[in-house]
Amino acid sequence: MIESPVWAPHRDVTNLLPGASLPALVEQGPEGRVVACGTHSICEHLEESCPSPRLLLAGRADRAEARRVWARIEGALAEVNESLLAERISQWVRRDRQPDSAALRAGAHALRGQLTFLNALAEMRGHLAGRQMSLADLCAAAHLSAYDYFGDVEWDAVPDLKLWYGRMKSRPSFRGLLADRLDAVRPAQHYADLDF
Amino acid sequence: MIESPVWAPHRDVTNLLPGASLPALVEQGPEGRVVACGTHSICEHLEESCPSPRLLLAGRADRAEARRVWARIEGALAEVNESLLAERISQWVRRDRQPDSAALRAGAHALRGQLTFLNALAEMRGHLAGRQMSLADLCAAAHLSAYDYFGDVEWDAVPDLKLWYGRMKSRPSFRGLLADRLDAVRPAQHYADLDF
Repeated sequence: MIESPVWAPHRDVTNLLPGASLPALVEQGPEGRVVACGTHSICEHLEESCPSPRLLLAGRADRAEARRVWARIEGALAEVNESLLAERISQWVRRDRQPDSAALRAGAHALRGQLTFLNALAEMRGHLAGRQMSLADLCAAAHLSAYDYFGDVEWDAVPDLKLWYGRMKSRPSFRGLLADRLDAVRPAQHYADLDF
Repeated sequence: MIESPVWAPHRDVTNLLPGASLPALVEQGPEGRVVACGTHSICEHLEESCPSPRLLLAGRADRAEARRVWARIEGALAEVNESLLAERISQWVRRDRQPDSAALRAGAHALRGQLTFLNALAEMRGHLAGRQMSLADLCAAAHLSAYDYFGDVEWDAVPDLKLWYGRMKSRPSFRGLLADRLDAVRPAQHYADLDF
C-alpha cells in the first residue's frame, strides 16, 4: 500500500504509466505485471482474474444491469462529490473559510434526486442491480458513507434505501470504513451505528 | 434501430428499465433478453459475448491498460463535449445566438491538453493503449471526428496523433461517420479526406 497525496505525488505512482492516476492496482501475476489505474480498469480486472465471488453477478442480463447501475452511480455521484462533499472537506481543511452555500445547495439537490432513484431500485430488487449484492451496491454504499459522515443523507425520506444501507453497513468489509475518522470532525451520531 | 430524441423520448426506450438512458442495446440471446444501457455496459457486454475480435486486447496487462485509456478518454473528453462541442451544436440550432466565447475557450484549452496526451501515446505505441487497435482508439476517434467536423482540432500540433487518425479514418467502419452531415453546416475542408 503506497499513499500518494495530491500535493506530493509519490514517484512510484507517477512512474507507473504515462498519465497514471489513482487509485492504481499493481499485481505481479503468472502472466507478468499488471497495472490497472482507475476504478473501471481495477474492478473489471479483478472480475476477470478472480471470478469467485462475482462482483458483477452471473448471467449476461444481470451483468449488463450491474454495469449500468454501477456506471450511473459513479457518474451521478461524481456531481455530488464535486459540490457537496468537496465543500465539506474544504471546510475541514480551511476552517476560517465561509462555506459556499450555492455549492452545498446544488449538491444537496443532486443528492436527493439520486437517493430517490436508488431507493426505488432497493425497493424493487432488494439490492441495487438485482436480488444479489454487486459492485453497484459497494460503489453506492462507499459514496453514501462519505455523505453520511457529515450528516448529509436524509435517511427518513428513503426508507428502503435505509434498510439496504443497514445491511451494507453490517458487512465485515465495512468495519474499517466506519471506524475511519477525520481529525477534529466528529461524524453524524448514527454514522457507525448498524441499527440507525 | 430506434431513435429517441431528448425532446420526445420513445416509449420503448423509457420502458426498458427504471431510469433507462441512451444509448441502449437490446439483445435476444440464447440466455434470454439482455438490456445494456450506456457505453460501459454495452461495450463490456459485447466484449464478453463476442470475444473475437477482442475490443479490449488480449492479456491482462493490455486489457487493464485498454480500459484505463478508454475510461480516461470518456471522462476527459466529456468536458470538451460539454463546452466546445455543446457550444458548436447550440450555435447550429439557434443561429441568432451569440456564441459563448468563454465556453469555446475553456473547451479548446481542455482539448489541447488531451490532444497532447493522446499524441504521446500514439507516438510511443502506434495505437492509444498498445500496438493493436482497441476500444480506446475507437472511442477517441469518434469523439475527435465530432470536433474535427467543426475544424476544432489543430492537427499540425500533434503529428503522431494525426498519422494515427489517418489510419482510423481509413477503416471501413468510419465510412458512415465521415459521410454524415449536419444541415446547413459544412464540415471542415479536410474532414472526410483520408489523406489530410
